[in-house]
Order: sequence, then C-alpha cells, then structure tokens
Amino acid sequence: MNYRMITYIMGQILKVVGACMLLPVAVAAIYGEKHAIFSFGIPFMITMVIALAFTIKKPKNNAIYSMEGFVSVASAWIAMSAIGAMPFVISGEIPNYFDALFETVSGFTTTGATILGNVEAMSKCCLFWRAFTHWLGGMGVLMFVLAIMSSNDARTMHMMRAECAGPNVGRLVSKSSFSARILYGIYITLTVSETILLKLGGMPLYDAVIHSCSSAGTGGFSIWNDSIGHYNSVYIEMVVATFIILFGVNFNLYYYIIIRKFSLAYKNEEVRTYFSVIILATVIITLLVMKQYSSAGEALRRAFFMVASTITSAGFSTTDTGQWPTFAQALLLLLMFVGSCAGSTGGGMKVARIMIIVKTGIRELKYIVSPRAVASVKMDGKPVEKDVVRGATNYFILFMILMALSTLLITHDKFSIEESLSAVITCMNNIGFGVGRFSPSGNLGGLDSFSKVVLCFDMLLGRLEIYPLILLFAARKNRI
Amino acid sequence: MNYRMITYIMGQILKVVGACMLLPVAVAAIYGEKHAIFSFGIPFMITMVIALAFTIKKPKNNAIYSMEGFVSVASAWIAMSAIGAMPFVISGEIPNYFDALFETVSGFTTTGATILGNVEAMSKCCLFWRAFTHWLGGMGVLMFVLAIMSSNDARTMHMMRAECAGPNVGRLVSKSSFSARILYGIYITLTVSETILLKLGGMPLYDAVIHSCSSAGTGGFSIWNDSIGHYNSVYIEMVVATFIILFGVNFNLYYYIIIRKFSLAYKNEEVRTYFSVIILATVIITLLVMKQYSSAGEALRRAFFMVASTITSAGFSTTDTGQWPTFAQALLLLLMFVGSCAGSTGGGMKVARIMIIVKTGIRELKYIVSPRAVASVKMDGKPVEKDVVRGATNYFILFMILMALSTLLITHDKFSIEESLSAVITCMNNIGFGVGRFSPSGNLGGLDSFSKVVLCFDMLLGRLEIYPLILLFAARKNRI
Repeated sequence: MNYRMITYIMGQILKVVGACMLLPVAVAAIYGEKHAIFSFGIPFMITMVIALAFTIKKPKNNAIYSMEGFVSVASAWIAMSAIGAMPFVISGEIPNYFDALFETVSGFTTTGATILGNVEAMSKCCLFWRAFTHWLGGMGVLMFVLAIMSSNDARTMHMMRAECAGPNVGRLVSKSSFSARILYGIYITLTVSETILLKLGGMPLYDAVIHSCSSAGTGGFSIWNDSIGHYNSVYIEMVVATFIILFGVNFNLYYYIIIRKFSLAYKNEEVRTYFSVIILATVIITLLVMKQYSSAGEALRRAFFMVASTITSAGFSTTDTGQWPTFAQALLLLLMFVGSCAGSTGGGMKVARIMIIVKTGIRELKYIVSPRAVASVKMDGKPVEKDVVRGATNYFILFMILMALSTLLITHDKFSIEESLSAVITCMNNIGFGVGRFSPSGNLGGLDSFSKVVLCFDMLLGRLEIYPLILLFAARKNRI
Repeated sequence: MNYRMITYIMGQILKVVGACMLLPVAVAAIYGEKHAIFSFGIPFMITMVIALAFTIKKPKNNAIYSMEGFVSVASAWIAMSAIGAMPFVISGEIPNYFDALFETVSGFTTTGATILGNVEAMSKCCLFWRAFTHWLGGMGVLMFVLAIMSSNDARTMHMMRAECAGPNVGRLVSKSSFSARILYGIYITLTVSETILLKLGGMPLYDAVIHSCSSAGTGGFSIWNDSIGHYNSVYIEMVVATFIILFGVNFNLYYYIIIRKFSLAYKNEEVRTYFSVIILATVIITLLVMKQYSSAGEALRRAFFMVASTITSAGFSTTDTGQWPTFAQALLLLLMFVGSCAGSTGGGMKVARIMIIVKTGIRELKYIVSPRAVASVKMDGKPVEKDVVRGATNYFILFMILMALSTLLITHDKFSIEESLSAVITCMNNIGFGVGRFSPSGNLGGLDSFSKVVLCFDMLLGRLEIYPLILLFAARKNRI
C-alpha cells in the first residue's frame, strides 16, 4: 500500500477542513463571540500543522488503487471528525469529548442525530459549525478537494468511488475534477437558492443559512429544539421539504437538465421511483393521520414533511411521529432503509439499490420455476451488469449483518432491543431520528461512551457505504 | 401445469393426515373422552372423502416439474392445516376457527406459538393432536407419503425439494423413496428413544410421548402453561435439550454414521459450526445471567436450555428470558435467525445458509479491493456452486423483504413495532416465542383475525422456505 500517498490525500482534505474553520470565526466576529478565537483558532492551527506536514512534499510515487482510495477516504473522515469535535470541547459547550465526537460525526455523515438536550443554549458560531459539517459532508469533502485540485486522471476515480453514494458511480462522476466542479456548482446553486427562498419567507439570514446547509447535506441539525416546527410556517416547511427532496435526487439528473438532455433525465427509473414512493407514502400517511388533525390539509402538510424528511434522511421534524398510528411509524421506518437516490447527498440504502434488490428477489422466484429462462435484472430498460447486481445484494447482506452486530453491541447499554435497533437504524441510514425513545422529540444523550463510539462507527459506515471503513480496519490486521 | 397430478398428490397427503386423526381417537378411548368421536370423526370422514375423490383415478400424465412440486406441497399444507383445525373447533376447545387455524398451522410448521392462555384446560386427545402435528410437520408429511409410496424416480425430487429445509438438498435426500424411509427410520428411532428416556426420568408416558413429538418437530407445544419448566427437573431438561439439538442436526449426518462413514460426518462444516455456536452462546449467556441465579450451575442450566430451545426453534421454555439482560435477549434473537442445520426438523434460516451469506459478505470485501482475485465461497473445503450461493443470498433478501412487509401488515393491529416485528420473527423462523409481550411467558392471543392470517402465512413461509407459497399465489395470477 502506498502510505505516503494516503497521508498526502489526508493532508489535502485536512487543509480544506482547516480552512473551513475560519467560517465560524467570521460568524463569531459578527455576533461578538470572543471564545471563537480559541475554540476554532486552536483546532485550526493543529489541523494546518498536520496538513502541511502531510503535504509539504508531493510523493514521488503517486499511484493509487482501490485500496488506497478506500483507506485514505476512511482515515480522512475519521481525522476530520476528531478535529471537528475540538471546538465544541474547547468552547465548553459540549464538555465531554465523546459527546462532541458523536455530534461531529453525526454532522459530517449528515445523520443529524444529536446528544444535546438543549441546542438553543449553544453559541452562534458553534451552531454554524455544526450545520456546516452537514454541508461539507453532504457532497463529500474529498469531492471538494478534487474540485479545487486540477488533476484530471483516472486515479481520482478510486477515491470518488469511495466517497460517492449508491450502487455504482454514474458516467458523469466517473473521472475528472471537472465533474466534481459541476457537482459542487449545482450543490452551491441549490443551497444559495434555498437560503434566498427561506429569507424571503421571513426567516432571519443566519437561520436561513443554517437550515440551508442542513438541508443541502440532508443532515437535519437545527438551531431550535423543535427543529423546523419552531417556525410554524407552511411556507418554510414546504421550501425545506422541497429542497431536501431535490438534494435527494441523483445529481446526474441536474447535469442532464443543464446540458438539455431532458429525455435522459426523464428516463431515469430511479428518480421516477423515488418521486412515486414519496407521493404514495404521503397519501397513505395522510389518510392514516387525518383524524388526528383539524383538517385534511393539515394532515397532508405534516405527512408530506415527515415523509420527505425521512426518505431523504434529512431528519428535520415538525411533528412527533410517536403519536401517529404504529402502521404510519412502520412505514416511515421502511422509508429510512429505502433512502434517497444514488449520487445524491441523502442517506439510506439508496432507491436504485433497493430496486435492484427487489428485482433480484422477483427474478429468483422466476428462476426457481424455470432455471433456464432467467431474465436479467433491468434498470432504465437496460440489463444491469452482473457485478452491479452482485454488489447491491451483497451490500444489503453486509448492511444487515453489521446492523445486527451493532445492535447487539448497543444492547449492553440500558436500552431495550427496540430502542437499540432504532438507534442503529437511524445512524446507519444517516437519518437523525428513530422510533420510541429516539423519536424526533428525543435525543441520543442517554447512551454511554462505548455505545456512542459504536454509533459513530455506524454513521461512518452508512455515509461511506461500508467498504472504506471495514477495509481500513481489515487492512491494518493484514487480513485482506 | 398438471393440475390433475397436483390434486392426486394432495389426495395422497390428505389420506395420511386423515389416517393420523385416528391416533387422537385412540388416546381419547384410553382416557374416556367421548367427544373425540365427533371432534375427530367428522374431520376424518371429510378428509377421507376428499382424499379418495382426488386419488380414485391415477392421472395418465404423471409428469411433474418444479412448479407442480411447489404448488402441490403448498396446497397440501394449506389443506391439511384447514382440516387439522376442525377438531379444536368441533370440540369447542378453541371455538374461533381463526384461532384453531393459527394453532394448527403453528403445529404443522413446528412453530409452537400459541393463542391459548391456558393449555391445561384442553382435553388429552386434543393436546395429543396438537403435539402430533409437530411430529408430522417436522419431517414433512409429503416425505412420509414418499416413504410409504414405492415410487422411486426423479420426479419425487421436485416435491422433496419443496418441503426439505436448507440451501440445497444433500445427495442423500435427492431422489428416492428409499432415502425418505431412511430419514423416517432415524426420525422414529430418535423420537422413541427420547420417549423412553423421559419415561425413565419419571415423566408419565402420556407426557413423555407429547414432549417427544414436540421435540422431534422442534415445535414447542407442551401440555403445561409453564412448558418444560413445569417438571423442574434437571434430568428432563437435559434430555429435552439434548434431543432438540439432535433433531436440529442435518439428518445426512446420522445416515453417514449408520453407514460408518465417520470421516464424512466429522467433515461437515455446518454441523461443527452449529455445535460451536451453541457452546459459545451458552457460555456467554451463562456469564451474563450468572448473578441472577443462586449458582453458576443453575445459570448454566437455564442458559443451555434456552439456547438449545432458541437455535433449534423448538420454543420450549424453562425461564422467562424477559428478565435477562437485554444483551442476552438480543443474542437469542440472533440465534432465532441462525436456526438449525439444513436437512433437519429445525427452523430459522439454517446454519449453512447463514454461513454462505457471511462468507459471501467477506468475499465481497475482498472483491472490492482486488476484483481479479476473487476466491469462491467454500463449504466443507470445497467451492460452493454459484447457484447455491445465489440461492442463499437471494433467499436472505426475500426473507427480509417478506419480514418487513409482514411486520408492516401487523402494525395495523394494536401492538408496537417491536412487538409486531417480534411476532413476525418468531413465526417466520418457526420458533414459538419472541421478545417483549410475546416472550416465553406470553402468548399471541391478543391479535386480531387479520394478523393471525398474516402470521399463519409467515409460519408456512418459514417452514416451506418461501418459494412454494409465493409461487402458489403467483401462479394463480398467471404472473409467473
């Protein structure tokens, strides 16, 4: 393994993370929060020293393969989480380092689960940093590095594959820093549009920026204990719901629209399924919760927002779903696994992967009857490559095995099996809220340090889609 | 599809089921329970009339293929459950037909989940019939038909594949009524041995027969509300635990031992893993529950019995595991999925299948690093055929999808997501008890009729390993 190249890539990523720490300092300057000089200044210095040490000399051998790609991405995400947690500890706003680490991992992985009982007590610069980790983690920090670096070769593909979500990397995001720039361009445009629309709806600029960053990463951190519900505004809820749904769409689609290939955009089976599931789930849940609200419109408003927030894994809330019928809650739980589209900032297993898995199951039934007449699994009207099918089904298997093992580890804590499973599901799918004790109205604060570390691992597993992290640890043991 | 042949096979199976209904009549004669004349006499007559109508003329075209095999097995199991439920209703001991159906499906599928709050109130002949359904369902009623029929051709393989548990049919049970006879020979020998050993331990003969039948099918119906715990005897618990573990072993192993091919028996990786898991789980749980009992020996006794009862899917209980630490409960829940060996009477996913699935997951990790150097999945030192690997992984996927959908359907009822999931898990894995409200001390009586039908379907799905039942319904709709 080319360790020198791995540390070089880590260094490049840490430079970006370090530079981003100057943003909350700017926020602090506006609001006169003096502690930011130390809270963010010290981590900034540490990050920059490490980053420079790692990048001062470009490695002679710059060959990297899958393994190097996975390991550098996994190490970089762990390093940036470890450093990103420091401002919370230094400022004293989250005194326990494990808590701060959990909050930061939850931020970068766009999970949005919090251990905080009262987020409103935090300073403005810390709240900004918390939401900004969502923005940075949403599209991927490595992607950001690639966007600003000018390298344009096949090597980078190994790394992008490690950080990009979904069963396979689309053609667009396959090779170049050019495509990374296009993706970040779309990402920034959408984020700014949402900020403007929220501001127009009467939200203060600071709030609008925070919630736009959270939406962009489909993360879910808010500055209010009652999340988006705080504003009690239909307009704001609809803007946020619409944008998180848009951030959950495969970004290739926007690219197709930009280059005016509308037919390619329309043909995308995954995106059509994604929208169909959202509409169907909204209708069913609206019917189920109708009698709990004063009008059908009110029920529709609540149902639509929570469906959008769940399937995209944003994890914002306007309603305590614990009060809804169990059937509606179970439906939301299923949506958590479905998740958003591949190549988006959303979490979950990804619609495309679930589609391949379900189609594989149906094909198996056909195979049992007549083994000779096996049709291949199709997506967008074309047969899916065998490797992609195998990859999707095996991803599902690994996901389930890791979910079971994580839940087993969490049950040592004081929670029931349901609660432990719920915590693991919410973390592995990067949602931010679960059912039961961990429903939108609760938080994960009651867990012990060991459970928090397990859940941090789960959040990273979910965001980086298992392989980078497992391979990082397996490689150390020289097993693989 | 050869419908004539399907009804002919169904008729043959119903003849056996009908004849078996004379056994509880004999029990009733001993204990002077007169109602049995009607309770069992009427269903006996109905069964025989249908069976004779179906079998009076042998079909000219006796060609059957996979599809016919699956459909006839699925229809036969549904028919025999529908008929087997009648004695409970006619005797008035389970007045509601849905409840009686649930109890009978739970019997034939060797689940052992009960809707009865007080089993001790039932008559001896009904309790006998209830336990006997376990015995008949354990090895498979079709297998019994094959054992007494003298046909000896490749056709029967299609049917045995449909009823036999595990990722693939071993060589032994591949073709002939000869092997069906060997299997039933081993089955009867083990059942009689257990009856004798229980009788020697001071159990009344009637009790010994009942619990041996229940053990043989790894079912779990008892005649006492507190199950095996009623006897409070270490000897009885150890005999039952040992025998359910033996019934959970792949029957091929006994065949190898009979023909003195000990090396083949020893080489069996699945059986070795099965025993290793039992030992490991027992040790861990003993350590976890130690402080709840007066001595380490007492803890070991409880842990061993409950591990055996869970992994074999027998579902007998001596302890209310709801009082154990959550971690121990979660471990038992995992064992439910693992289940016993392929080609045994036990439930769950089967050890071999889980092994293939886990090995496939590990191989996928290796594949991600170096796609060219893919090792094949191995069992017993030999590479597993691709079809078997694909079958095992896709079975897992279908199992998970059906589990999620069933749970969703059950949540319409008045139970929490955890309880609904627990009920589905216990039924699909044919265990008989779950966690929470459905822990060993509870029963499934509180469910509504719709939920009961869903769970009946789940129990059949688990016992017949998904395909026959799905294909039965898919075929009707001409979808496949």
